[in-house]
Amino acid sequence: MTTVSILGMGNMGPAIASIIEKGGNTAQILGSNDTDQTVTGEIVVLAVPYPAIQQVLAQRADQLAGKIIVDITNPLNFETFDSLTVPADSSAAAEIQAALPNSRVLKAFNTTFAATLASGEIAGQPTTVVIAGDDADAKSHLAAVVTAVVTAGGLRAIDAGSLRRARELEAMGFLQIALAAGEKISWTGGFAVQA
Amino acid sequence: MTTVSILGMGNMGPAIASIIEKGGNTAQILGSNDTDQTVTGEIVVLAVPYPAIQQVLAQRADQLAGKIIVDITNPLNFETFDSLTVPADSSAAAEIQAALPNSRVLKAFNTTFAATLASGEIAGQPTTVVIAGDDADAKSHLAAVVTAVVTAGGLRAIDAGSLRRARELEAMGFLQIALAAGEKISWTGGFAVQA
Repeated sequence: MTTVSILGMGNMGPAIASIIEKGGNTAQILGSNDTDQTVTGEIVVLAVPYPAIQQVLAQRADQLAGKIIVDITNPLNFETFDSLTVPADSSAAAEIQAALPNSRVLKAFNTTFAATLASGEIAGQPTTVVIAGDDADAKSHLAAVVTAVVTAGGLRAIDAGSLRRARELEAMGFLQIALAAGEKISWTGGFAVQA
Repeated sequence: MTTVSILGMGNMGPAIASIIEKGGNTAQILGSNDTDQTVTGEIVVLAVPYPAIQQVLAQRADQLAGKIIVDITNPLNFETFDSLTVPADSSAAAEIQAALPNSRVLKAFNTTFAATLASGEIAGQPTTVVIAGDDADAKSHLAAVVTAVVTAGGLRAIDAGSLRRARELEAMGFLQIALAAGEKISWTGGFAVQA
C-alpha cells in the first residue's frame, strides 16, 4: 500500500485523494493550517494554486527531500487569461524541480479538471492523467507506484516523457482553463485522450 | 457556397478537402507542382509541412493578400521530438502572420490527426477543430464561413481566442504527435474535446 500526501484542500486535492483511496491506497490531506503535521507519503502532490507554491516550499522543502513530488499547477495569469506566468521556455514544474534539487518532480493532473477526476471518465473514455518527469528512477517508480495508484483508482495514466514536456502540458492546461472560463467548454468536460 | 483552396497533398490536405466537400462547399487542392495555378478560394489552408511554408509564401504571397489563411502546421523538431522549432514565446502562426501582413491568419486543424478528420469523430465526440486568430473581422468571417464549412462537414469548431493561443495549440499538437510517435496513443486517436 502506498501513502500519498496531498497538500491542498481546494477542488483538486480532495478529488485526487478520492482516487488514491478508491484504489485502496492511503491519502494524507494537509491544508494550509496543518503546517505542524509532517508529510508521511513517499509521493507528495502539490495541490495548491501556483501562487501558493513558493510558500509551501518555504515551509516544507526539508520534508520533501527524497520524495516524488507531483506538481499539478497551471501557472496562469488569472487576470488576463492571456498568458502563463512562467517564462515561455520553462514551466512551473521545472521551477519546482530547481527549487527542490533533492526531490524528483513530476508533472501530472494539470490537464484533468476535478470533475473528470471525480467522474472517472470523459467522452466515454477513462479520465487520463498525463505525466511528465525527468528522472528515469522516478518514472519507473511512478510506473510502479503512482500509475498503479491512478489505475487502481479507475483512471488511465500516460507517460509523456521528460520534464521538458511539462511546458506543453501547462500550455494544454492553460488552453483548457481558458476555454472553460470563456464558456466554450464546460468545467465538467475538457480534453479527453483516446488511446 | 464557399471555395477553400488547400495547398498541400499530404495526409492532411485531402482530409480537409473531404470535409469541405462533404459540406457542399468547393475545395481546390493544389500540390507543389501546381505553381502555375492561382488560388481561387477566399480561404486558403496551408496544408504543407512547416519546413515548406517559407517556399509556399515565396511563391504565392501576392495571391494570399486579402484572404483568410489557415495555418495547420506543427513546427516540431522531427529529429529529436523534443522541441518546437519556433521561438518559445511565438508560434508558426504568428510568424506566418508577420510574413503576410495583408492576409488574416488563423490557426486551426493542427490538433486533429487526419484519421479523426476522416472519421469525423473521436472518443464518441464529433472531431473538434480548435481555432485561434487575431482579427475580429476574420473571426466573425470565420464563424460565418469556415466554422459553417467545418460544421457542414460534420465536425465541431471552437474559437479559442486570439492568435496568441496558437502557441498553446502548437504545444498541444506537439504533445499529441510526440505521444503517437512514442506509441502511447494511436494515430487514429489523440485529444478529443468534450464540450
